[in-house]
Amino acid sequence: MRQDTIHVRVIVPITTRGFRRPEALKALESPGVVVSHAEIDTGPGSIECEFEAALAAPGTVAKIIAAEHEGVDAVVIDCMGDPGLRPSRETVSIPVIGPGQTAMLVAAMLGHTFSVVTVLRRLRPSFENTAALAGVSGKLASVRSVDIPVLALESDLDRTKAMLVEEAVKAVEQDGAEAIIFGCTGLLGCAAAVREGLLARGIDVPVIDPIPNAVAVAAAMARVGLAQSKRTYPMPPAKEIVGYPAIELPFGMAAE
Amino acid sequence: MRQDTIHVRVIVPITTRGFRRPEALKALESPGVVVSHAEIDTGPGSIECEFEAALAAPGTVAKIIAAEHEGVDAVVIDCMGDPGLRPSRETVSIPVIGPGQTAMLVAAMLGHTFSVVTVLRRLRPSFENTAALAGVSGKLASVRSVDIPVLALESDLDRTKAMLVEEAVKAVEQDGAEAIIFGCTGLLGCAAAVREGLLARGIDVPVIDPIPNAVAVAAAMARVGLAQSKRTYPMPPAKEIVGYPAIELPFGMAAE
Amino acid sequence: MRQDTIHVRVIVPITTRGFRRPEALKALESPGVVVSHAEIDTGPGSIECEFEAALAAPGTVAKIIAAEHEGVDAVVIDCMGDPGLRPSRETVSIPVIGPGQTAMLVAAMLGHTFSVVTVLRRLRPSFENTAALAGVSGKLASVRSVDIPVLALESDLDRTKAMLVEEAVKAVEQDGAEAIIFGCTGLLGCAAAVREGLLARGIDVPVIDPIPNAVAVAAAMARVGLAQSKRTYPMPPAKEIVGYPAIELPFGMAAE
Amino acid sequence: MRQDTIHVRVIVPITTRGFRRPEALKALESPGVVVSHAEIDTGPGSIECEFEAALAAPGTVAKIIAAEHEGVDAVVIDCMGDPGLRPSRETVSIPVIGPGQTAMLVAAMLGHTFSVVTVLRRLRPSFENTAALAGVSGKLASVRSVDIPVLALESDLDRTKAMLVEEAVKAVEQDGAEAIIFGCTGLLGCAAAVREGLLARGIDVPVIDPIPNAVAVAAAMARVGLAQSKRTYPMPPAKEIVGYPAIELPFGMAAE
Amino acid sequence: MRQDTIHVRVIVPITTRGFRRPEALKALESPGVVVSHAEIDTGPGSIECEFEAALAAPGTVAKIIAAEHEGVDAVVIDCMGDPGLRPSRETVSIPVIGPGQTAMLVAAMLGHTFSVVTVLRRLRPSFENTAALAGVSGKLASVRSVDIPVLALESDLDRTKAMLVEEAVKAVEQDGAEAIIFGCTGLLGCAAAVREGLLARGIDVPVIDPIPNAVAVAAAMARVGLAQSKRTYPMPPAKEIVGYPAIELPFGMAAE
Amino acid sequence: MRQDTIHVRVIVPITTRGFRRPEALKALESPGVVVSHAEIDTGPGSIECEFEAALAAPGTVAKIIAAEHEGVDAVVIDCMGDPGLRPSRETVSIPVIGPGQTAMLVAAMLGHTFSVVTVLRRLRPSFENTAALAGVSGKLASVRSVDIPVLALESDLDRTKAMLVEEAVKAVEQDGAEAIIFGCTGLLGCAAAVREGLLARGIDVPVIDPIPNAVAVAAAMARVGLAQSKRTYPMPPAKEIVGYPAIELPFGMAAE
Repeated sequence: MRQDTIHVRVIVPITTRGFRRPEALKALESPGVVVSHAEIDTGPGSIECEFEAALAAPGTVAKIIAAEHEGVDAVVIDCMGDPGLRPSRETVSIPVIGPGQTAMLVAAMLGHTFSVVTVLRRLRPSFENTAALAGVSGKLASVRSVDIPVLALESDLDRTKAMLVEEAVKAVEQDGAEAIIFGCTGLLGCAAAVREGLLARGIDVPVIDPIPNAVAVAAAMARVGLAQSKRTYPMPPAKEIVGYPAIELPFGMAAE
Repeated sequence: MRQDTIHVRVIVPITTRGFRRPEALKALESPGVVVSHAEIDTGPGSIECEFEAALAAPGTVAKIIAAEHEGVDAVVIDCMGDPGLRPSRETVSIPVIGPGQTAMLVAAMLGHTFSVVTVLRRLRPSFENTAALAGVSGKLASVRSVDIPVLALESDLDRTKAMLVEEAVKAVEQDGAEAIIFGCTGLLGCAAAVREGLLARGIDVPVIDPIPNAVAVAAAMARVGLAQSKRTYPMPPAKEIVGYPAIELPFGMAAE
Repeated sequence: MRQDTIHVRVIVPITTRGFRRPEALKALESPGVVVSHAEIDTGPGSIECEFEAALAAPGTVAKIIAAEHEGVDAVVIDCMGDPGLRPSRETVSIPVIGPGQTAMLVAAMLGHTFSVVTVLRRLRPSFENTAALAGVSGKLASVRSVDIPVLALESDLDRTKAMLVEEAVKAVEQDGAEAIIFGCTGLLGCAAAVREGLLARGIDVPVIDPIPNAVAVAAAMARVGLAQSKRTYPMPPAKEIVGYPAIELPFGMAAE
Repeated sequence: MRQDTIHVRVIVPITTRGFRRPEALKALESPGVVVSHAEIDTGPGSIECEFEAALAAPGTVAKIIAAEHEGVDAVVIDCMGDPGLRPSRETVSIPVIGPGQTAMLVAAMLGHTFSVVTVLRRLRPSFENTAALAGVSGKLASVRSVDIPVLALESDLDRTKAMLVEEAVKAVEQDGAEAIIFGCTGLLGCAAAVREGLLARGIDVPVIDPIPNAVAVAAAMARVGLAQSKRTYPMPPAKEIVGYPAIELPFGMAAE
Repeated sequence: MRQDTIHVRVIVPITTRGFRRPEALKALESPGVVVSHAEIDTGPGSIECEFEAALAAPGTVAKIIAAEHEGVDAVVIDCMGDPGLRPSRETVSIPVIGPGQTAMLVAAMLGHTFSVVTVLRRLRPSFENTAALAGVSGKLASVRSVDIPVLALESDLDRTKAMLVEEAVKAVEQDGAEAIIFGCTGLLGCAAAVREGLLARGIDVPVIDPIPNAVAVAAAMARVGLAQSKRTYPMPPAKEIVGYPAIELPFGMAAE
Repeated sequence: MRQDTIHVRVIVPITTRGFRRPEALKALESPGVVVSHAEIDTGPGSIECEFEAALAAPGTVAKIIAAEHEGVDAVVIDCMGDPGLRPSRETVSIPVIGPGQTAMLVAAMLGHTFSVVTVLRRLRPSFENTAALAGVSGKLASVRSVDIPVLALESDLDRTKAMLVEEAVKAVEQDGAEAIIFGCTGLLGCAAAVREGLLARGIDVPVIDPIPNAVAVAAAMARVGLAQSKRTYPMPPAKEIVGYPAIELPFGMAAE
């Protein structure tokens, strides 16, 4: 076990400024773990579909390469779609943690099955694909949604929480879920209220808030000296690339 | 069945000019089907990893949106990694065909199992992920590689073909493959030679050349009036996006 | 790509004469593709169970062997149970296309999941078995039925279409289907009406009419020179067979 | 538990007379269980492919319907391809047991994994399909073959047994099998010798001889009053059928 | 086939005396099969969770080793949780049959899918795990419960049977089950009534009473000379063990 | 995130004293995390089969209940067989972490596939079962073994490490593993040497040392306030139990 302080960086893969507030990031720190963050420079204002995730990926990779250059110990991508997860893992050696993939694997550890409660119905295929690639399709009971856009989640936070409880109850009682994952990192901080709401209905299941979970797992990986396999994610070959000047090339590529 | 001429566009998702030659594209035409092509403006010189696929995606989406604006009937992405397949399917209503996904589904139709013979070992996880998302993991016998970079495939074409036969024989005899898929669209035109090489060894299996296969399937889809599900791939929401001026926004988004 | 005209034969595997009408077959033609058909001489009047499918198989194989003798380029079996698909693929070298298997693989290409809407509840195990053998069980959301016998589908066509819409809506909203397959080739020609009915309910998903889809895919396979794997479907050995005089033996068998 | 004598009939689904010898059938009896047999009237001389299995099915169904008429308690189909299993289960209420399906489920009960050692390489897809339909694909380690035609198995029985041991050893040591199934009922009676051969190599695994296993399971099902589900296998509808005069129609169909 | 009488022992893995009545055990005998039973000396009064199953396992293993010493031919564990199944299979050579695993494999043989109707909701994960280890997860339609504790099942047997029918109907109509398994051996003897109740609702599916089924299969295995694979379940190594004096050590271990 | 010190207890589920050395446990501590340990009082001297795991479970549960009584924050079971994991999770509310299950889920997060390199060949089914229950069977490339008993691992540590490297190389090159898990917690401390050995062969994959990994994950779970689902693992019912006086009964059971 490493004994020094671990530095985890949270990469916010959207161009809306101020989405992730300083006090929320501060709350992610703990003894021996400091947390910083960065926002991407090119990409969508929020991520609610595959198209936006694709436009977020290049900027996210750029910030992850920069984080490793700065000496950060581990990185968390601040979106449940894990945009840029696989591409960025090729470009660095520090652990890159996707909160979507990580929440599913932790949920599979804690419960027999789990459901994702997310913002929009259209994200269902995307979460089922995340489960398929993580290898835990058989553990995913359902994907449910409250049908509130990401940037509107906080406009009536009590209603958002009430709807999360509502859908989580259905996930447990109708779909057979035995753990709940929030399907949007914009729901950060709602876990305690949702867990209380479930307990009030007699339902005692873990409610996974993906960013705290991902930060804790990222720090744990750095602590024990583990990172993504370079057999799965080898360095990209040196090669000319047109049009992405923000991406630093640690692996000797000639950028145009 | 539509009775008019179908226009299929092949989108070459790399910035190396002249990779796809006019005579090769001409050979993809047939009665009632014309084929055009376009190359992307930003992205990598070739695609050999997830990082490069991610950088190819935005430019590919831009060209697919443009193709629909021009009245093209169906689009084929000219790379076995299917870069931009899911994002672009959200942005248009014409069928977008990924040669990787399509070759696997056709192989599952024609044979009990199939193997992919590709250029580089590092692409194995990516092809296994394509199979997982297409739902045919159980049909994929193996992913094998000849270990030749994409842009070097044609420098000694006889050697390339010989190595393809070699690996295909191993796929059949050692891994249990009953159909072969080329795992790189840079191998266009090698299928006849490889099939002959296999027959000479007493092995009679389909050898799927992914671009002809994808063009034929794309034309078939347009002919019967089918395209990707808009339940799986709904239009992206209108939203501000920073940094991708080449992407036309047919869905009313405000670009910066 | 072959440049000449492709000849696709539709084999109707039932003994009821006139089930498949000439104008419906004509509508399956397109530039470069002609369509003929044949009906079997021994077997059931319609196919609604495994027993009838088994009795349809020998006659179907006989007509497929005859089609290859006549120089046909590809064959489509006109029943969603794909009767005789595997046996006949062993006996010929031209592509034999089963509309059930092919519709599922095309649906897996176009949507995240699909449902089959068929005539009778009793066919559910059979369609789930087709999905299992095609390797796409994970993509099959549900099998639903309108509970109308095959030969009665056209007696009140408006009611049939309305019930198809009804079940397709349930497949999408309750079962999570993102594409719809008709589970009986007797529904040929209903796709446009059902798709309209779904759109009127705000549901935009592909509706796959299995025979047009199978004919287009059969022609595409012939166009690119692909057929079933002879490693999966090698020629039967020469052998004495008792009782099937209609089956021509291209492979040197001694019939009694 | 029924307390009377159970009558099991073995249906030999080939037209070669005398293939199944009386003493071998006698050896299948035990306290409270008598065994009779019947051979089909139309079909192939032996079954080594899907084509032959399809031609064997109608005659097999005919004999199974006749067995129920005669008051037989349970039926076993004497071929590892289980020809006619699903069709015949629809037509009768007594249990119909397929030795292929049953051997796989018993092997899954006794060992962590199993392999099939069969006669010809071409049968591999067929056995993998049997496993898929039985739902135990994950338990099937491999399908191996000795490459001897069915009717030649007994011409040099010592060599046949030696080759069975050879392939079984490879199945265990190379493929991870922990139980062995004979993949041809023509191997009846070889189990003891093969098990001894394996023990001599230090390998202690069950060797399942499919016909004794199927007869014992068939008798057990009859003893406890279980048979195939009529929800999965409901009676065929009454319907005109052309060309199968040998099939008695217990369900009120009008034969031509 | 062995021709002598088979002796099957039922091991009751709970410490409540008299739970399994003599007449019920007598009813499990049949021509050529005698049945005895034994109760464990240490463990829980009944088994309704994983904790109790774990405490039942050592005592169950002790009784199974003793049974082999006494010359018993096969053993059945009298609990659907199959407590001690894998551990005890390592310690003996006679077949050890778990009614949970065996019922699922027989159900997979008889029907396309099956459901378990058990006593308590909390047992769902445990049954799904049994299916996963048996390799038949894809065949398990659902696990339903009547919410009656094991030792209270017989206090109002008519109500218990009525509730079993109720849940079995839902399993068939809502979950797609095509066979029913009782999920508690305490329901022994209810199968006829439940099957009648289902037939009265027009539902004709097998109702598997796990103990009669397991005894019949155990006898069948002994009859054909099959037992668990010693490759999967090799003898434990000789080793010091603290605290289990009741376990006889046939394999040369030094107990304290 | 909790900000106070987390107390993790390692439960050594064997009766051999001194197996886990104080300095090895000290090395598992880190800023904000203290580690204690306990050994069980009844059970086997080491765990190398299912029988021994079953005898270890009751004593392990006893120590885990005691740990929660003492105010410990999280528990790790010190054996890759995860003995007592499911039973003990029912009896406490603090997170109980099994190193086998946890290593597999972390490996699935870091690499495309993983292999387990363990001590004895006989453990393969057990590890495959762990993967099946964790839901990641599709990620497990192979289970390999060095064939050294647990208590002999340290007698020639250099040879043990060399053999671990040897098997890990085969796992990567022959079986397609992209991450390595040690399949015995007795290998604690060998990870650095094995990773170096692999790098010397040009293989750059994570080598997961299960106990440090489990302790880090246990602390992370406690830090974010997550534990096993009480829907999956509800408290056992109050009930008489015979013969386990060491188990404290926090849930009101009457022990004899």
